[in-house]
Amino acid sequence: MTEQKSYPTALGAASRESITLLGTDLAADVMGEVGFGELAFWLATQRRPDRGEVRVFEAVLAALADHGYTPTAIVTRLTYLSAPDSVQGAIAAGLLGGGSRFLGVTEDVGNFLHEVLAEAGAVPADDAGFDELALRTVTAQRAEGRFVPGLGHHVHKDGDPRTPRLMQIAREEGKFGPHLALFEAIGRVHPQVLGKTLPLNGAGVCGAALADLGLPLALLRGFALLARTAGLIGQLAEEMRHPVGNDIFLSVDLDNRSVPPDPIEPS
Amino acid sequence: MTEQKSYPTALGAASRESITLLGTDLAADVMGEVGFGELAFWLATQRRPDRGEVRVFEAVLAALADHGYTPTAIVTRLTYLSAPDSVQGAIAAGLLGGGSRFLGVTEDVGNFLHEVLAEAGAVPADDAGFDELALRTVTAQRAEGRFVPGLGHHVHKDGDPRTPRLMQIAREEGKFGPHLALFEAIGRVHPQVLGKTLPLNGAGVCGAALADLGLPLALLRGFALLARTAGLIGQLAEEMRHPVGNDIFLSVDLDNRSVPPDPIEPS
Amino acid sequence: MTEQKSYPTALGAASRESITLLGTDLAADVMGEVGFGELAFWLATQRRPDRGEVRVFEAVLAALADHGYTPTAIVTRLTYLSAPDSVQGAIAAGLLGGGSRFLGVTEDVGNFLHEVLAEAGAVPADDAGFDELALRTVTAQRAEGRFVPGLGHHVHKDGDPRTPRLMQIAREEGKFGPHLALFEAIGRVHPQVLGKTLPLNGAGVCGAALADLGLPLALLRGFALLARTAGLIGQLAEEMRHPVGNDIFLSVDLDNRSVPPDPIEPS
Amino acid sequence: MTEQKSYPTALGAASRESITLLGTDLAADVMGEVGFGELAFWLATQRRPDRGEVRVFEAVLAALADHGYTPTAIVTRLTYLSAPDSVQGAIAAGLLGGGSRFLGVTEDVGNFLHEVLAEAGAVPADDAGFDELALRTVTAQRAEGRFVPGLGHHVHKDGDPRTPRLMQIAREEGKFGPHLALFEAIGRVHPQVLGKTLPLNGAGVCGAALADLGLPLALLRGFALLARTAGLIGQLAEEMRHPVGNDIFLSVDLDNRSVPPDPIEPS
Repeated sequence: MTEQKSYPTALGAASRESITLLGTDLAADVMGEVGFGELAFWLATQRRPDRGEVRVFEAVLAALADHGYTPTAIVTRLTYLSAPDSVQGAIAAGLLGGGSRFLGVTEDVGNFLHEVLAEAGAVPADDAGFDELALRTVTAQRAEGRFVPGLGHHVHKDGDPRTPRLMQIAREEGKFGPHLALFEAIGRVHPQVLGKTLPLNGAGVCGAALADLGLPLALLRGFALLARTAGLIGQLAEEMRHPVGNDIFLSVDLDNRSVPPDPIEPS
Repeated sequence: MTEQKSYPTALGAASRESITLLGTDLAADVMGEVGFGELAFWLATQRRPDRGEVRVFEAVLAALADHGYTPTAIVTRLTYLSAPDSVQGAIAAGLLGGGSRFLGVTEDVGNFLHEVLAEAGAVPADDAGFDELALRTVTAQRAEGRFVPGLGHHVHKDGDPRTPRLMQIAREEGKFGPHLALFEAIGRVHPQVLGKTLPLNGAGVCGAALADLGLPLALLRGFALLARTAGLIGQLAEEMRHPVGNDIFLSVDLDNRSVPPDPIEPS
Repeated sequence: MTEQKSYPTALGAASRESITLLGTDLAADVMGEVGFGELAFWLATQRRPDRGEVRVFEAVLAALADHGYTPTAIVTRLTYLSAPDSVQGAIAAGLLGGGSRFLGVTEDVGNFLHEVLAEAGAVPADDAGFDELALRTVTAQRAEGRFVPGLGHHVHKDGDPRTPRLMQIAREEGKFGPHLALFEAIGRVHPQVLGKTLPLNGAGVCGAALADLGLPLALLRGFALLARTAGLIGQLAEEMRHPVGNDIFLSVDLDNRSVPPDPIEPS
Repeated sequence: MTEQKSYPTALGAASRESITLLGTDLAADVMGEVGFGELAFWLATQRRPDRGEVRVFEAVLAALADHGYTPTAIVTRLTYLSAPDSVQGAIAAGLLGGGSRFLGVTEDVGNFLHEVLAEAGAVPADDAGFDELALRTVTAQRAEGRFVPGLGHHVHKDGDPRTPRLMQIAREEGKFGPHLALFEAIGRVHPQVLGKTLPLNGAGVCGAALADLGLPLALLRGFALLARTAGLIGQLAEEMRHPVGNDIFLSVDLDNRSVPPDPIEPS
């Protein structure tokens, strides 16, 4: 006979009379008292954020919530078209596109800046110090033929409007830390190395801001997915009232032009 | 030659210089200005909610975010154990459990109350009117051998603490509408029909509150999923620091006791 | 202290020396001896099928494996485009479109025929008997304003080539049972009720054939998903060598035409 | 005005009269003629395999189909418990556990052997040549502190019965190529480097066999997922008749022991 293990958690717990979440009375002290962005932060860190942290965090979520007809949005609409009985399937399918490529820049930037700062040891004392670290970093990346994560945007070639705005909000709230400072310095110094000026990507700056908030780096992709869940619900709501999914499907399947197989021969 | 269709959307749109969301300048007027719950409401309805609507909506999200070791939470932890390379897969897998059974009561209650009110035609003028409608409704359900959605809870047998709290918040914000009123009346009158007193379910009252906010009924499950996404990120964050997934797996696979097949014979 | 439960299963089991599957030695008696269609049937029913059952079952899987640019195929390609690090995510996303609408006809037909036969009690003795039952059934459906599942196809208006072929295979193998017979009879008699001739849908006849094989009705959708998994791997393989996902994405996001929000006003 | 693109594919195509799959008449020449394993191979490579290739391929699928209460199986059962309305969701959720860890060894071995052979240039002429290459490889891995993929198994410590069996089948069919030969050689020589004898993993040998069949390396995980789809349908079928999902859920949620939050403090 083996004893049944128990699995402790600090998240939701319920007894006959009460419900607690993170050790707090859910009904009395969470519902009606805690905003949803604040709650998501609290759940991820098991620490209740202050108002400035919430404002920066929610600004990031706003920046990432919806970008129109991304692959994730199209996927949610097509899955709903094909399986209208399962809202959870349509949302889950959309989120599955939230991987290394389309949502990846947020976590790539957060991780990259974190590693650079960790290797540098001491945090630079001022802008000049950050510029020096940034210059070394961009130069090293270039020497190894690697991109600098978060540098460049395929649409906003003259500047991503989200980037200065998020930096401003972080400054207003006293949450402008070394990750944002280093990212900003990269924006200042990279032209002297690369010979051209690239914009600081708005999804990338979100990674820097989340890292400055002390959020777990392994979950940066998770926060992008949380933001996107709200966006995908918006996409579904619009699809229900003004459907385009079937038109998209038909435009792809338009002529169903068949080409001969292209066999992979055994080597 | 077929002309390429275009697919209009009121959600995210970007030009070289600017990004709009719902016709609003994302950087200037959404980031830093709009909370995440508020944004999710806005995306779903394309209408910016007032403060009272946001407070009720966020109270609902708090009520549904995490209930400890639900099947969805276990699924997210086990999927992360098995495929740690894909945070999006772990979250999507958890959300796929958000179907008719565990998250269903929210949408069931919203839809049920909406149908009863639609059939009744005029909205009752006062509590007595709601009691009468509730009495007719519970009596009819019973006569047909059907449950009343939202009545009963397997743990909170003497009352779900979320229910009175959400009603209180809705009242404070002037958002206590006919769905909540009818649900409350069902709570008052059902003992005289059923001969016993059942609690009004806290996930059920969320459906009533969302319906009173005018949110699309077809998306009530979607809002529960949004809340749960924040909860699942919390579960993942805890799993990363204090893993239990492998212990859960091993407890199920403990003895791998094999039983003989139980064949389905052809009829 | 609570004793740990154990969870018996007749499926895979392993000890230090051996592995069994369905009580059979996996290495010696399954690998190299059992085809994949046969194994899938065996796993679902815990009964090893005979050769005729395997041939009919695999014909069904072939009929359902891939239909070109269906929503599920597009979804898999777009998800791979967006998250190339997760093959499992791309396949899972595609399968999530396998719901009530695009894959639904297979299970709808199986369930419908099963109910009609169950209500009829005795299985008709000959074609005339099936015609009579079919006539009653189509007439009743029409009277209630309901479609007959499996009748009609948006492309193969003069006949779906899969339907007679699957019936022929089932006959050759002695697996042409009452579900196929009733479906065939519906094909014969419906014109006198509906006043026009509709084709018997090829995905629908698959449901009839699976029901005649005695497979669990609740899993008919599952077999369609199994077939489609092979198809989606084919789609992924083609996408990896001749990618079209980015072109599809760009064609949808072509002009990103933004329209004003269409608010849902509170009622 | 932009012209609508067209998206050619060699997979499924349909006209009013006919359906082709891979340029072949589906009804006449695929249904009833092509087994499901054969079809899956054909779809992935656009090349029809010979009988020996099919036998090896199906032996691999059998080896990977189901391993009892794996995390993927538990996830499918719990998702079905929680959302019984969505069979596709339960299967998709299970597949999402098919990532780098539990299904990863198949693709890891295939890729590893492929790289070693590519670097070696010429394929060794005989066992002695393979032993030499294997020795160099194991020694190099050890020197870099890295594992050799496919070496070791947590249950079958004295040998995984699938490994010699799959090698035997491949030999019988004339499909024992350099990947299997190198893997076998690793099994012979590693004790002299590592000082202990480890089993060749049965999921690993599958990767070697698939690579010898010339299947795309980027899709090795996909074939494991195809095999597992059949297994998950078996798990669902068993769960529907002999449910254990709720007991598993309750065993985890047994005492819902709440521990105090463990906050992540800002750095």
